Amino acid sequence: MSNTFGNILRLTTYGESHGVAVGGILDGMPSGYKIDIAAIQAALDRRRPGQSVITTSRREADRVEILSGLMDGVTTGTPIAFEVRNADHHSSDYDNMAHTFRPSHADYTYTARYGIRDHRGGGRSSARETLARVAAGAIAAQALAEHGIDIYAYTRRVGDIALTEQYTAYDPALIESNIVRCPDKSTAERMIALIEQVKAEGDTIGGVVECVIKGCPAGLGDPVFGKLHAMLGAAMLGINAAKGFDYGMGFDGVGLRGSEAMDPFEVDPATGRVSFAANHSGGIQGGISNGADIYFSVAFKPVATLLREVATINDSGESVTLRARGRHDPCVVSRAVPIVEAMAALTILDAMLGARCARR
Amino acid sequence: MSNTFGNILRLTTYGESHGVAVGGILDGMPSGYKIDIAAIQAALDRRRPGQSVITTSRREADRVEILSGLMDGVTTGTPIAFEVRNADHHSSDYDNMAHTFRPSHADYTYTARYGIRDHRGGGRSSARETLARVAAGAIAAQALAEHGIDIYAYTRRVGDIALTEQYTAYDPALIESNIVRCPDKSTAERMIALIEQVKAEGDTIGGVVECVIKGCPAGLGDPVFGKLHAMLGAAMLGINAAKGFDYGMGFDGVGLRGSEAMDPFEVDPATGRVSFAANHSGGIQGGISNGADIYFSVAFKPVATLLREVATINDSGESVTLRARGRHDPCVVSRAVPIVEAMAALTILDAMLGARCARR
Amino acid sequence: MSNTFGNILRLTTYGESHGVAVGGILDGMPSGYKIDIAAIQAALDRRRPGQSVITTSRREADRVEILSGLMDGVTTGTPIAFEVRNADHHSSDYDNMAHTFRPSHADYTYTARYGIRDHRGGGRSSARETLARVAAGAIAAQALAEHGIDIYAYTRRVGDIALTEQYTAYDPALIESNIVRCPDKSTAERMIALIEQVKAEGDTIGGVVECVIKGCPAGLGDPVFGKLHAMLGAAMLGINAAKGFDYGMGFDGVGLRGSEAMDPFEVDPATGRVSFAANHSGGIQGGISNGADIYFSVAFKPVATLLREVATINDSGESVTLRARGRHDPCVVSRAVPIVEAMAALTILDAMLGARCARR
Amino acid sequence: MSNTFGNILRLTTYGESHGVAVGGILDGMPSGYKIDIAAIQAALDRRRPGQSVITTSRREADRVEILSGLMDGVTTGTPIAFEVRNADHHSSDYDNMAHTFRPSHADYTYTARYGIRDHRGGGRSSARETLARVAAGAIAAQALAEHGIDIYAYTRRVGDIALTEQYTAYDPALIESNIVRCPDKSTAERMIALIEQVKAEGDTIGGVVECVIKGCPAGLGDPVFGKLHAMLGAAMLGINAAKGFDYGMGFDGVGLRGSEAMDPFEVDPATGRVSFAANHSGGIQGGISNGADIYFSVAFKPVATLLREVATINDSGESVTLRARGRHDPCVVSRAVPIVEAMAALTILDAMLGARCARR
Repeated sequence: MSNTFGNILRLTTYGESHGVAVGGILDGMPSGYKIDIAAIQAALDRRRPGQSVITTSRREADRVEILSGLMDGVTTGTPIAFEVRNADHHSSDYDNMAHTFRPSHADYTYTARYGIRDHRGGGRSSARETLARVAAGAIAAQALAEHGIDIYAYTRRVGDIALTEQYTAYDPALIESNIVRCPDKSTAERMIALIEQVKAEGDTIGGVVECVIKGCPAGLGDPVFGKLHAMLGAAMLGINAAKGFDYGMGFDGVGLRGSEAMDPFEVDPATGRVSFAANHSGGIQGGISNGADIYFSVAFKPVATLLREVATINDSGESVTLRARGRHDPCVVSRAVPIVEAMAALTILDAMLGARCARR
Repeated sequence: MSNTFGNILRLTTYGESHGVAVGGILDGMPSGYKIDIAAIQAALDRRRPGQSVITTSRREADRVEILSGLMDGVTTGTPIAFEVRNADHHSSDYDNMAHTFRPSHADYTYTARYGIRDHRGGGRSSARETLARVAAGAIAAQALAEHGIDIYAYTRRVGDIALTEQYTAYDPALIESNIVRCPDKSTAERMIALIEQVKAEGDTIGGVVECVIKGCPAGLGDPVFGKLHAMLGAAMLGINAAKGFDYGMGFDGVGLRGSEAMDPFEVDPATGRVSFAANHSGGIQGGISNGADIYFSVAFKPVATLLREVATINDSGESVTLRARGRHDPCVVSRAVPIVEAMAALTILDAMLGARCARR
Repeated sequence: MSNTFGNILRLTTYGESHGVAVGGILDGMPSGYKIDIAAIQAALDRRRPGQSVITTSRREADRVEILSGLMDGVTTGTPIAFEVRNADHHSSDYDNMAHTFRPSHADYTYTARYGIRDHRGGGRSSARETLARVAAGAIAAQALAEHGIDIYAYTRRVGDIALTEQYTAYDPALIESNIVRCPDKSTAERMIALIEQVKAEGDTIGGVVECVIKGCPAGLGDPVFGKLHAMLGAAMLGINAAKGFDYGMGFDGVGLRGSEAMDPFEVDPATGRVSFAANHSGGIQGGISNGADIYFSVAFKPVATLLREVATINDSGESVTLRARGRHDPCVVSRAVPIVEAMAALTILDAMLGARCARR
Repeated sequence: MSNTFGNILRLTTYGESHGVAVGGILDGMPSGYKIDIAAIQAALDRRRPGQSVITTSRREADRVEILSGLMDGVTTGTPIAFEVRNADHHSSDYDNMAHTFRPSHADYTYTARYGIRDHRGGGRSSARETLARVAAGAIAAQALAEHGIDIYAYTRRVGDIALTEQYTAYDPALIESNIVRCPDKSTAERMIALIEQVKAEGDTIGGVVECVIKGCPAGLGDPVFGKLHAMLGAAMLGINAAKGFDYGMGFDGVGLRGSEAMDPFEVDPATGRVSFAANHSGGIQGGISNGADIYFSVAFKPVATLLREVATINDSGESVTLRARGRHDPCVVSRAVPIVEAMAALTILDAMLGARCARR
């Protein structure tokens, strides 16, 4: 529903790009988890623009403040509210945007829906809203870590430059070793070169983020409408600029035969523990996790804000020429990485809580 | 949540493959819509197995009965309950399955989640559950038709045989002209030949269904977590065997430049009506419909039930050999077409109701 | 929301008085509970009209059928659908009601809301809908019994004849010993005499049902909007003809001083177990159960259907005279007893599931 | 659910008494309503302690700040976040409370539920949380006023001193003319004298707040579980110290005959407009508003914090003596008045939005 995500663990966010603050309330967090606020801040810093030459150079301090729900750094079971104040709020820089609809943005559709929109910096449709998701996700991720669940994402593809191997071939420790967050050095270099070229042309380019969830127990996911991958899909498709989601063998699996796509069981003779000889399923079968790694991809479009003049219309239907102000990302995928991780963490923790109610 | 789909318009389904009945309650349906029960039955008949040589020959009568919520064929605003009785319920044919986990099925994961599972014909994880979605979707579709909204889906790809043009190139009137539900005759023939070959090999093959929504007004969709494409994505990923979802330019758009992917506005000088010179957005911008056609794709895996012997394990961890009973589809996509349409109809009608609350 | 009750355990009901069937889906029921269908039927029989001279003599067979969610009598975690077919559906007996608004009924308000209403026997506003609540409540009650939680209700007051002692003074074993379901013989006799007198006058009378929940563990209830007593209150106020709800010292506590109303702690020196020297709180403090008995009262109005001529209007605003057809209860409280119990069971089991997510 | 109230219009609150801030997010507010922030502040000031000799003298500045959702004072359809910073947060004054359970408070039950509690000033169970409700309610009330709906509440009873007439006998303009918020001067004086006497004794006393909703259109309320009075009841019972709720004739109606309790229709011959010759129903029939005044009562217990020594236990089960710090209200009802109004406003506006989806 609207600005709330999740069933038992529920994140509600608020805030416009140039309003007073962006933040949220994470409700349904069980008591007893130790939360490190510095880790939340670190997650926000990864999402922050201006981290590198390939991201926008807009400076945002983005200091998170926790307002409730913790005592001595431990969750109490009450809602955790947090906020990030906007440094440059109520800017008049955007007055020229009040009546202009940027093409392939949300300006026209917000107006169609609400009859009114906050035009300053994109208002609510700005990616700045994702700050709140990253903060909440960083809380959830710390709880998951206590249960041995680890989530990481990275850039799989930028334009037509893509990693060629399965996720298992890449070392997550290398993700932060380059500014495009790709765990393969030479691919990363080619991606960065492409982004710089696109940027020089005043253009933008899309990409794919892949996410891996390790240590997830079997049994998570409601098997009909609330299938675990359906919840992950909704979470990812709710991220700005997302155009597609697939998991396991995904779209590529369409070309396989059933006999090729099968994941045979394996039983450890010593422990009796069940595992799988392959993982086309992506760790989810019938909508429920099976204990294997969960992995999925999210496609992001080339963002619509070009660093050049664009012809468009205003809200009177007249033709106008638009030139974007400020700095904008030529490619969002590197900054989308922590957002994907955050939404995955919220989804998995919510599913873990739901699984507690599945049996007598 | 679990067995309920939707926010204002909510479908709750029930039923196991070999239980007494499969059905559902569609709640939140506004009063005043004329509903043709024959059209519901026709939708169910399209989903039914045994329609052609390329689908399973299991005979299912699948007669829908409406139990409430209509008076003289018109919705009254009260919940519409419906059911389809199972002809062959409580079958003992499946006794051998009670302790066997079929590979790449939901047997193991259901047991991991619930400690127990109804093993007869897949129980709740059977695609027979989708009957209820199709019935409810047929009700929603009739309401949408009164508002000038038309939804159709078709088979875009089977294995590596795919349509090559955009959806606009195909005539929806041709979808039902062949058993694979592909609107291009020669592609359909090649798809059918492939499915027959795969079937002869005792194997299965995946596919892609594409769906188009025409006539959708601008302004539908909650712009943050409830983005219209996120809701459509969750709806589609909740369908059995779905592995991926994308909309508009989708995964292919990743390779485009922002300047190529833009959808310029057009204004009709006579009427002042806004339209778009291109539709990479897929009719949705910032999570809200823009009035253009909505189109999206759903990837379906090759189903896991092979018509040959398969090695697997039982719930004691012992190796066993399994041979599927009964008849099973070598490719699910043609039968998935009406399910995709149904879930789309439910999603769009729900979003239309939500949009009524967006403004003063 | 509308026709769904509960958060994690959710009952959705459907059905009109003279439609095809009345029933529901109980979703979110954990797997592993043994359910006795005969006990569900017995609960329905207690709710049934025509049990005694003081209730309506309408004959309703009311045989419940379980359609899903059980295997060998044990819950599987999938939704439990159930239905009761209506014997006398689509009756034309009510044609004269199609355009008449009965005073103090829901006829006018349904029409105001929906523009249409099913007028046959009250349609959806008929107390027959509560069948579905009683069936679902009987399932929940069986699960609660496995956890040592026992719920019972009885008639505390009819008109001005009321029990004078606290609930602790009465033996629940006596509730079913008389037709008015009052656990005090002489009070019951006076209540029955009053109801018979009222009935002879063609009139009706109100009453109060009290409910007691024993064995409820401490810790149930969400402490802000989802306070346990707020959920119980919503459950009870949702029953037809309910006009009020209070718990613990309730409205009478308004006249007490804080020093009189206090519930001092007691600690068993042997076990260290905490109990309470008094129970003005009604087993709930700060919205969370404290382990003491929960008790509350529900006020029911004198039902509006009199067995005499009544002046009213039709939907053209013209004055008409109305004479009720069929048989109607002069006092609903004895039949409300099992409905109150059912709603309490659903509320408590839902709260138990919620409590599983409160802690790490 | 937990810290969220409402279906389409949803308020989520956060904050502990001595945390950083108390606040909330009001989501689902339609665009286009003009909101006066001074009116929100005025509502908070009415709730504030220290307004008079009969309320606690704790000084709280309680300045509300709006963080999002408005542009030029008009709602944009995006979530409205607001907060009130706590002046005296993280106080060590309460260290002695860390291990003590106050009798008839939420200390023991929070610990039972969460294993941990924020003991500072009652933490989340403090009535300070209601600040957020009052702020959100003041926003909703301004929207309702644009639709001609007016809500007011007042003190009907303190201890055994009560107003004797129906609400229609009292002028709401007089409510704020005295510190106990009772619209009858002489009754108010007697109430105040009683409260002062109780205060002098170091004791507390309960009371009843009555609320009236005028101008509510017919057709609001979901007729089964979401009956309008069930939603109002849940809203009121969720307020701290509430012990009971009734509406219309309420508990007193139990003693009436059906023939006495009837609300005959009246039709204005000139306009054809329907009204009612009586209003025992309290403006709601079958769970749906009928256009007449809605009125209901809420019982509040004598608060448990006495201004004298109290024997209790600590979390080791040992007997301890407790003396309340700071200042506390001897009677909460006058301060409960704006909270009741706020929750009523949120409930009615939510129901108005729901009614928009009831018909084609």
